[in-house]
Formats: sequence, C-alpha cells, structure tokens
Amino acid sequence: MKISGTHYRTIWLTAAGAVRVIDQSRLPFDFAVVDLDTLDDAAQAIRTMVVRGAPLIGATAAYGIALALRADASDAHLEYAARILQATRPTAINLAWALKRMCSALGGVAPKDRVDVAFREASAICDADVEQCRSIGIHGLEIIRGLANTAGGRVNILTHCNAGWLACVDWGTALSPIYMAHDAGIQVHVWVDETRPRNQGAALTAFELGAHGVPHTVIADNLGGHLMQRDQVDMVIVGSDRTTAAGDVCNKVGTYLKALAAHHNSVPFYAALPVSTIDWSLDRGRDIPIEERSPMELTHISGRTSSGSIETVRVVPEASPALNLAFDVTPGSLVTALITERGVCSASRAGLLSLYPERGAEWPIPLAR
Amino acid sequence: MKISGTHYRTIWLTAAGAVRVIDQSRLPFDFAVVDLDTLDDAAQAIRTMVVRGAPLIGATAAYGIALALRADASDAHLEYAARILQATRPTAINLAWALKRMCSALGGVAPKDRVDVAFREASAICDADVEQCRSIGIHGLEIIRGLANTAGGRVNILTHCNAGWLACVDWGTALSPIYMAHDAGIQVHVWVDETRPRNQGAALTAFELGAHGVPHTVIADNLGGHLMQRDQVDMVIVGSDRTTAAGDVCNKVGTYLKALAAHHNSVPFYAALPVSTIDWSLDRGRDIPIEERSPMELTHISGRTSSGSIETVRVVPEASPALNLAFDVTPGSLVTALITERGVCSASRAGLLSLYPERGAEWPIPLAR
Repeated sequence: MKISGTHYRTIWLTAAGAVRVIDQSRLPFDFAVVDLDTLDDAAQAIRTMVVRGAPLIGATAAYGIALALRADASDAHLEYAARILQATRPTAINLAWALKRMCSALGGVAPKDRVDVAFREASAICDADVEQCRSIGIHGLEIIRGLANTAGGRVNILTHCNAGWLACVDWGTALSPIYMAHDAGIQVHVWVDETRPRNQGAALTAFELGAHGVPHTVIADNLGGHLMQRDQVDMVIVGSDRTTAAGDVCNKVGTYLKALAAHHNSVPFYAALPVSTIDWSLDRGRDIPIEERSPMELTHISGRTSSGSIETVRVVPEASPALNLAFDVTPGSLVTALITERGVCSASRAGLLSLYPERGAEWPIPLAR
Repeated sequence: MKISGTHYRTIWLTAAGAVRVIDQSRLPFDFAVVDLDTLDDAAQAIRTMVVRGAPLIGATAAYGIALALRADASDAHLEYAARILQATRPTAINLAWALKRMCSALGGVAPKDRVDVAFREASAICDADVEQCRSIGIHGLEIIRGLANTAGGRVNILTHCNAGWLACVDWGTALSPIYMAHDAGIQVHVWVDETRPRNQGAALTAFELGAHGVPHTVIADNLGGHLMQRDQVDMVIVGSDRTTAAGDVCNKVGTYLKALAAHHNSVPFYAALPVSTIDWSLDRGRDIPIEERSPMELTHISGRTSSGSIETVRVVPEASPALNLAFDVTPGSLVTALITERGVCSASRAGLLSLYPERGAEWPIPLAR
C-alpha cells in the first residue's frame, strides 16, 4: 500500500541485508522504520509489538530464523531460534505456522546453504501472504458489492483492531476487501473501533485508511452496539489471530462483544484470514492460550501533546490493579462466514473442509464438542 | 462516603452560602472542590462534567435553580433558569425530574420567599437521593449475599462507567450494594470497566472503590465478554441515566454490549436506579435522545505524566474524524432485574408497576410496543 505516494510493504530486505520493518509502536504520529539484524532484534520486535498482526508476526519470525542462521547455521541454533521466536507471543498461530514451515524447509539443507534457503523461504512466505491477502480482498469485495447493490448507497463497515496491511505484508485481511471496494468506486465508510488498550484501531487502522483515502470515523469500542441498533452498520469485518478447525475465531479482545451485537441486530459478521491463521489441531476456541500483557498498556496511554512531543500519561489510579488480556474467542456460531484466500465459507468444520478438502484426511474428528 | 477518613457528599452548602461540589473532571489525580455561586456556574458544571451521574446532575440542577433565584426571584427568571439548566445535557432524565420538582415547589410561592424554599427543596432532593441510594444498597445487598452463599466464596461483580457515590449525592446506585456487601464482610471483587471515552470507570469508580478499600481490577471495556465466557463474572450491575416505563435502560455507551454478553453467558445483569431516573412518559428506549459530545473526548486523553503534571495527549490521527455518542439503550429483555429504592423488579412495565402501583392510573398504555 502507499504512504504519501510511496509503495511500502511492512517488511522487506535492505540492500545491506538487514530486515527492515515499519515501527508500528510509533504510529500514527511518527512514520519510522527499524532494521532487524539479529535473532534478538526480531524476537524483541515481535514481543514489543514494533511489528504485530498475525500474518506479519509470522513473516517476521521467518526472517528471524534467517537472521539467526546468519550468525550460526547449526541444527542446535536453528532449534534454539525457533524456541526463542515461538515464545514471543502465544496466541497468533501464524507464528508457529511460519516457524514450522521454516524448519521443514531447512531441516534437510546443509548448514552452509541454510542462510540462502532461509532468506528465500522467508521471502516466499511474504510473497504468499501478499497474494493470499489480495485473494481475500477479491472474495470479500463481492460481499461488499452485494451490500452496496441492496443498500443502494454507502456501505457502513465496522472493524475492530487493525487487520489491515500493517498487520500483514500488504493489503491486509479484514481491510483488503475494503480497499478493493473503495478502489472499485463503491462508497464505503468504515467505523474504526479505537481498540483499547493498545488503540490499534485509532492509531493504525485510522492511519492506513486515511493514507489510502478511505472515508472512516473513529469510535469508542463501546459504541458499535448502539450503531448497530440504529441500523448504521451494514457489516462487520475483522481479522483473526487464530481460527480453530471448527470455526471459532480468536481475535483482539472485544471482537466477541461486536459479534454478539451483530448477531442481536442481524448484521452480518465476517472474519477474514489466510490459511496460515487456521489451527487445524484445535477444535474448541476456549483451548486457545490467551496472551496476558503488561497492565501498563491499560494504565498508561501515549500520544502527542499540543507541543508536538510524544508523552505517556497514566489514566488509572496508582493503587488500582489492572488486567490486560489481549484476545478473546468468538464462537463460530456468531460468525456469518469466514473469508479466506480460497473463498467464503461457514465458520464451521464443514465450511472449512469445503475450502480445504485436503485437510479432511489428517484431521482427527473429536467425539464431542 | 469517606476520602482519607473524611466523610463527604458530592454536593453541599458552604457556610458562605455557595454550593460546593467535587470537581470530578480532575479525579483521580487531583481531589479539588469548586464553588458554584450562580446559575451559570451550575449550568457550566453540568455541561463540562465537573459534576456528572444522573442523580447528581439532578441535585446540581436543583441547586442551580436556587442560585438563579438568589439573583432574581421572578417567575420569568425561574422559567429562564429551568430552560438553561434543562439544555445542559439531554439524556439523563433526573435533570428534568429535579427541575420539574423545583418548579412545582416554587410556583405558588411569593418571590420574596422563593430563595429559602428553593434551597430547602434542593436540600430535600439531596437528602432523598441519599436515602434512596441507601435503600438500593440494602435491596442489592441481598442479591450479592445470595450469590456469595451459592458461589461459596468471592463474588466477582462487573460494573460499567461510574454509578457510585460520585454519581449521586452519597452511596451510589450500582455501587451502593457493593459497598454494603463489602462492609458486611462479604468478599466482593469488582471488575471496573475503563469506560471510554471519558474513562469514568478507570478515573472515578477505581478511585472511589480504592478509597473505600473494596478490591477491584480495572479492565478494558473490551474484556468483560471474555471474562464472562471464562466464568469470572458472577453478576453485572450498572446504573441508569434514564429507564423507560417499559424497563429499557439507557446508560453509558457500552452498557448494551455487556448486557448482551451477560445474556449469552447466563450472568445476571442488574440496573440500579432511584425512581427519579424512571421516565414514565416513555415506553421505547429508542425514543430517548442520545447525547453527542465533543469528539475531543475520544481523540484526546488526559492523565498524569511521570513528572506529576497533568497533560493531554492526542491518540487519533489529526485527519481522522471521530464520533462520540455518550449513551446506549439496553432493552429490558436483557436486564435480569431493576433494583430501585423500593425493591427489586423485572425490567418491564409489569415489574415497575408492581413497585410503583400509584403510576398505574396516570400511565397511558401504548397499543403496541
């Protein structure tokens, strides 16, 4: 996507061989890039959310393996790097998926050839993500086009957190159909959930929609239900950090509340995700580990002062504890459909199997849900 | 309630005849009081949320009438003052209720006697609010006691916004039963919704629970649904800014989302309110006017810097518009029960009539909902 007319991906290789990423912890007020030169750099970037978003976490982890091997291409170091990266964040499954793919690609390769293969494989993961997000956009565009035809005017779309191109390598998952609809001349308007506590909606989604010229309005996370009651939301579309084989969607905390409101008001609710986000080994969403992050993400907020500096302020009394769980799980029964790179399906085992029939054989069917 | 060992109400008369209030816009970091000397002072305090909370808005408006009459006790000025105060905030019905009560009490009084009568009536409104909130606490306490007996341990209560003593004259509505349960030795723990955009939960509810020693944890508004899914919420209790005669509850935006989650997870959901909050003239919640406030309440956040000063920072990109609607409506069908000063009833016309049978005669029954 473009920022001030220049096309960017969220992660790329510099001529000097560093892995360069956009520092998302400084958006929307500072657009800065950071070079990752070592395994530790990559792990730290994921852990501190310099990069975030399930697909981009996977891509960064893949490059993290390549950077690790550049220092030491032994089997032991490959295993060590995978362990370090896996421990950075627990919920997004793309991380495990990317690491597994890297280890598979590298296992049979002689150490002297591993660095080249690793960078090629990481690059292929990025290219595949771009292509998958583009396909998600094409499938989702048809849903938006359908709503535009029936609504006969502007389509109001609510999204939670950031599942845009900043969360991926390019295009985004939830926002990819929105960009395509906007580019196709469909009148779209996006309700952007602020997305506390880290404000990825206000900071990142608003930033990238604004940069692309898509009409949008930032709202408190609390407002979406009321807007749905007043028929001001035509659809909800969110991303996913992990989707179970039975269609439960784990995404940024608060997604579940929006799904409940959508269900109660007959507003279609979609989750958009590439195949790498599907955890074929899990059936029940409640078995997904939910990341607990620092309470400071809730008790303190950073922003720009009137004098232009970035300042952090405390908004909760010192004596009050705070709990910061980063994700929740929306049961598939509340999800109208999943949008993947292969098409649109119901958020269920049968739905996913219809798009990924090759998973039918390897998939153990549990006796009871 | 007490702050640092001193008993306070939220509004009282000084020896010099001013109306003194706690400046709630400066909590939790500064505890300061403000004197209201004129009608304009009172109107401004309500408008800028120096005072807030439906019952306290009513009490402040009552004193605003008294202050207005001190300057000019004519019929014309009484009417003017009521109009000015009524226009300060549109949603909370206690405002209209208090103004109507003041005008009724003053209409037949000679101008020379009006100031005395007005101050007495405003004081009576405050005393009645304290007594009503105390009664709400006693009725709600029994619900909490029942949960403590069945749960056999700590009762986890989620609340949204601030419906504590800071929202009233003393005790609070939603928090009154919690204070009484805590004082009665029942182990309660409160999940405090941050309550964006003005953070009244993080700023006010956390402050007052902390000051009283009630265990609590501040959470993002987004987290409550997840906690309910994980059986970590035993009940929800909120206040109300206006309750329709049919039991729909208008309260701080986001309340509806919590009610949906409570319903979906079979968690009891209560609204606590004095009779002054009931709008007997309205049946459908969607007919309640919803206040739109400045987008700056969403785009900017104030808090304390590490150096101790209070600073305001922008958290939304300059180019992004924001919408700030302050309330939403929870249909009575999602409310387990209402807790009023007269007892506990279903959130329905029949329920309210069972507690307020005297309203049966005057109440026009609509043909259709």
